[in-house]
Amino acid sequence: MSRILGIDPGSRITGYGVVEITPSGVRYIASGCIRIQAEEFPARLKQIFDGVSQVIALYQPQQMAIEQVFMHKNADSALKLGQARGAAICATLNHDLPVYEYAARQVKQALVGKGNADKLQVQHMVKILLSIQGEIQIDASDALAISLCHHHYHQTAQRIQKAVS
Amino acid sequence: MSRILGIDPGSRITGYGVVEITPSGVRYIASGCIRIQAEEFPARLKQIFDGVSQVIALYQPQQMAIEQVFMHKNADSALKLGQARGAAICATLNHDLPVYEYAARQVKQALVGKGNADKLQVQHMVKILLSIQGEIQIDASDALAISLCHHHYHQTAQRIQKAVS
Repeated sequence: MSRILGIDPGSRITGYGVVEITPSGVRYIASGCIRIQAEEFPARLKQIFDGVSQVIALYQPQQMAIEQVFMHKNADSALKLGQARGAAICATLNHDLPVYEYAARQVKQALVGKGNADKLQVQHMVKILLSIQGEIQIDASDALAISLCHHHYHQTAQRIQKAVS
Repeated sequence: MSRILGIDPGSRITGYGVVEITPSGVRYIASGCIRIQAEEFPARLKQIFDGVSQVIALYQPQQMAIEQVFMHKNADSALKLGQARGAAICATLNHDLPVYEYAARQVKQALVGKGNADKLQVQHMVKILLSIQGEIQIDASDALAISLCHHHYHQTAQRIQKAVS
């Protein structure tokens, strides 16, 4: 059994989701949001770093998956996102977990079957695949979507490897 | 006596500089560049995180100063810079050091007396203030400039506090 942590980094809210791979399928473990409340910038980064560290300590995942960012509309928000992303990844590497990156298109393709699916379609599939009842925050479901995407590609890669060997 | 670590973060080269504040003035301790050689992005961030951690473990500074970035010409490079900056700051916070930020204009003002001074003028002043003979890499001298800028503003703040109290 192995656990995958998905992270959806943001400078105000960083979503996380943990799923477990069992012989009978994927199981929901936890999800939530790290809300950045500090005012000063270094303290804000520390909240992300510490928040991700705590999630890892609590749920003990073996792998981390995060969205790959290619381009961004605005240089100022790209800088903020980059810093938040850097903090989340450093917290993960500090726990010796491997980091996997997936493009938004790959996440949508893996979950909905369409690279241009919208956010709500992705959330809908996350809830179905993990049998989640009730409401779930979009940052948390995006993080779960990335962890499910990693599971999907990883499984496919293993299947291909088995078929080849 | 206290030591200040200055960091000039970059996704390819991260400069660092350490100065020591003594009763007789500021003294050069060390400077250099962390060259990022890994190809994969998470490994690149880890090199910055580990590199800054090693510099802190080796030279034991009590404070860290870094350039504040407001705007950037290009969203893609802003994201890369943001991630590098996030990694350097997280390594520092992980060692419980306070982080101080200064705008490029403040660094130039503190060292050259002009907010629009060019990079070579700043380097020239770094070499004079720290009695550095010979060549020094621009990333390393930029990092030393930030540590000197922090010393300058910190000293001024202390002087004002003394005068007021």
